Amino acid sequence: MSRTIVKNGIFVTLASKEEPVLNGYMVVENGTIDGLYEGEPSPETVNGNTIIDAQGKWVLPGLVNTHGHTGSALLRGAGEDDLPVQKWLESVMWPAEQTFTPGITRAANALAIGEMIKSGTTTFLDMYHLNMDAAGELIKDSGINGVLCRGMIGLCPEHEQREKLNEATDLYRNWHNEADGRIRVMLSPHAPYTCPPSFMEMIIDRASEHEISLHTHLAENRGEVETHKQQYGKRPAEHLAELGFFDLPALIAHGVHLSEKELDLFAEKKVCVSHNPVSNLKLGSGIADVPGMRKRGISVSLGTDSTASNNSLDLFEEMKMAALIHKGTSEDPTVTSAYDTLKSATAQGARSLGYSRKGRLEKGWDADFIFVDHSGMHTLPDPADRVLSHLVYASKASDVTDVYVSGRALMKNRELQTLDEEQVIANVRAAMEELKNLM
Amino acid sequence: MSRTIVKNGIFVTLASKEEPVLNGYMVVENGTIDGLYEGEPSPETVNGNTIIDAQGKWVLPGLVNTHGHTGSALLRGAGEDDLPVQKWLESVMWPAEQTFTPGITRAANALAIGEMIKSGTTTFLDMYHLNMDAAGELIKDSGINGVLCRGMIGLCPEHEQREKLNEATDLYRNWHNEADGRIRVMLSPHAPYTCPPSFMEMIIDRASEHEISLHTHLAENRGEVETHKQQYGKRPAEHLAELGFFDLPALIAHGVHLSEKELDLFAEKKVCVSHNPVSNLKLGSGIADVPGMRKRGISVSLGTDSTASNNSLDLFEEMKMAALIHKGTSEDPTVTSAYDTLKSATAQGARSLGYSRKGRLEKGWDADFIFVDHSGMHTLPDPADRVLSHLVYASKASDVTDVYVSGRALMKNRELQTLDEEQVIANVRAAMEELKNLM
Repeated sequence: MSRTIVKNGIFVTLASKEEPVLNGYMVVENGTIDGLYEGEPSPETVNGNTIIDAQGKWVLPGLVNTHGHTGSALLRGAGEDDLPVQKWLESVMWPAEQTFTPGITRAANALAIGEMIKSGTTTFLDMYHLNMDAAGELIKDSGINGVLCRGMIGLCPEHEQREKLNEATDLYRNWHNEADGRIRVMLSPHAPYTCPPSFMEMIIDRASEHEISLHTHLAENRGEVETHKQQYGKRPAEHLAELGFFDLPALIAHGVHLSEKELDLFAEKKVCVSHNPVSNLKLGSGIADVPGMRKRGISVSLGTDSTASNNSLDLFEEMKMAALIHKGTSEDPTVTSAYDTLKSATAQGARSLGYSRKGRLEKGWDADFIFVDHSGMHTLPDPADRVLSHLVYASKASDVTDVYVSGRALMKNRELQTLDEEQVIANVRAAMEELKNLM
Repeated sequence: MSRTIVKNGIFVTLASKEEPVLNGYMVVENGTIDGLYEGEPSPETVNGNTIIDAQGKWVLPGLVNTHGHTGSALLRGAGEDDLPVQKWLESVMWPAEQTFTPGITRAANALAIGEMIKSGTTTFLDMYHLNMDAAGELIKDSGINGVLCRGMIGLCPEHEQREKLNEATDLYRNWHNEADGRIRVMLSPHAPYTCPPSFMEMIIDRASEHEISLHTHLAENRGEVETHKQQYGKRPAEHLAELGFFDLPALIAHGVHLSEKELDLFAEKKVCVSHNPVSNLKLGSGIADVPGMRKRGISVSLGTDSTASNNSLDLFEEMKMAALIHKGTSEDPTVTSAYDTLKSATAQGARSLGYSRKGRLEKGWDADFIFVDHSGMHTLPDPADRVLSHLVYASKASDVTDVYVSGRALMKNRELQTLDEEQVIANVRAAMEELKNLM
């Protein structure tokens, strides 16, 4: 296989806070980064190889979205916004989801994946309870990296719990490490408040048996934590710890309401956190103590949650929010930095999802990278020492021009290469008609 | 003058929360809205008139940015981000500003105005201390609406204070109501902490004499309020009230740290607030009590502040932040709504700046309107009942395709019509060279 040379780029390697960028070229071979070098490639290096010109672009690792639910993408803005969570779930989400056919969730999966690629996301986690095989097929075909989680709610008889767990285990057997390792699978109890301890233990045992990582919603809002305390006499994270949940590799979403003790426990057990600031604000859940997590060395990545509670799958927006919100609430602008935020959205995200060679521009790592145009008025002036700042505080999803995963182009000059955008949109419109008739 | 018919549009009139949109057409005559009607225009209505097709677009009032400083636009991302305010001012802002030539601020003005038009802003307030006449010329030529404020810092001998005030008054005499009323002028003491009471009184007297409205930074961060209390034995807003500041029409920027009593006073005196959530978060200033303001009937509009502390002039981003942040901090998603947020970004903004016929799509009002494309994957599905939600929570600045002020096109299909974008960018690059040599 011939090599690909990405030249004339400003590569945002994030190698260190002091030297976060490299001006030069990158060599890609068989989907892997073979090296990054300063300056111009020599004629011999160029000769016979595919050349991609990154002139006028910042090249950075593809962004990683560590929590979401693509199956509900058609519910973006559905029903009344600005509702309390419980009312929103009961009046909007649940009635709609009960009518979802495989055609509807497939249209939603594709819409979400298209939106993510267009905004520079190369890897995402998808927790949903319907038609996860179809999501797997779409990930395989579209070329993106995806972690499949069959979300399990345990408020049902034990035989139904077992069915769900078997379905989740089948998903693991059928999809884990498929598509050249682009697809991974985790086991996903929905949350402690929807999974009684006996079911949680069943899941942990299964995960332990197959060495599967765990993902769950945890401590998203205050009410849920209070109810848990009343019901079990302990906070949900402490409770999961006692059940052995954190003895396995685990990624929890939200973690808005965690005690100091629980944060210490996360650090000790190397629990990873998916921080979803936009969704947490929109649902009135609150604001996670991310500075406290970082101080303890806890790995913090970023998630958008679903379009039903965000309402975008835009990690540029999520980065800006994640960088800003903690400065404001602590009244201290030094508690977050552009550098840490970019690390969260790339390397830490990939690691949290169990990908060992994604999220960095470095020799030997997967060639997952994106181009960000910086010629728009909203990112000027653009001297080299403002790259990190601009990427977090000024660049937009619409500035992403090209997206590559393992060296394969998923988007070139804002045109999707592996998904037919018109067809995706036509399918969304058809699914909306179907949904209208069902509800 | 012939009439212009904007047809096939979904007009976001915001007439009421229940019926916020109208499907039909809008008639514009001599820069004024002559009427909005449901359905298709008749052949007689169309005949001989200019037709603008708004098919596939949401048409809304142009957005209004009620606080910023375009003169410092070249400092976007300059120096180290993520710094404490005082250190940022002393190490980044002030040393840079001291070197600004008229060429540098003019390049900055044009960059900021271009960025604002491209993101759907038709009206903005500009507080700066350098070369405000050049800003006036640019506003006049570019066709945007602008409020000029010569920002005055009073930490200087009295004769210098008088010079500044005379300069500000000249700005009023030369520019107020110019360009067919598109330009307005306010008197702008920088802040209570930079303007001793004697100077503040001098300004209030001058404003009173000429019936000029007032604009100032107020209660932006906690330290500033504490220092004021130590120095004068009272909080800054109470202090301004005693000096008579609020007996004149006044718009204050930030208002992050206001007591309940001060909020009551604002309601009583009809003081308008420019809420700048992104800047307030970025500088670690804190979060204004906007729900408390709205509850009291205080007019709240939105401002981006400058690119040096945001780092965008993007009111779509500001709307999303303003809608989300208060839900999160109060843990109550009902405290803000998409409808209120859109009103803040349009009608309330225009009123706060003293424009009596801007910010609404309504017969007799100025034809200031923008088109927002909703065909992108990130705003799908797009049924009519999700328009407000999408505009606040999903639409992006890059979705704005067309911008009109008083019926004149400032942008068509994302091409600026009154500014030469290439020239603006070339001037920015030249100014950056100049700046590099000066510093």
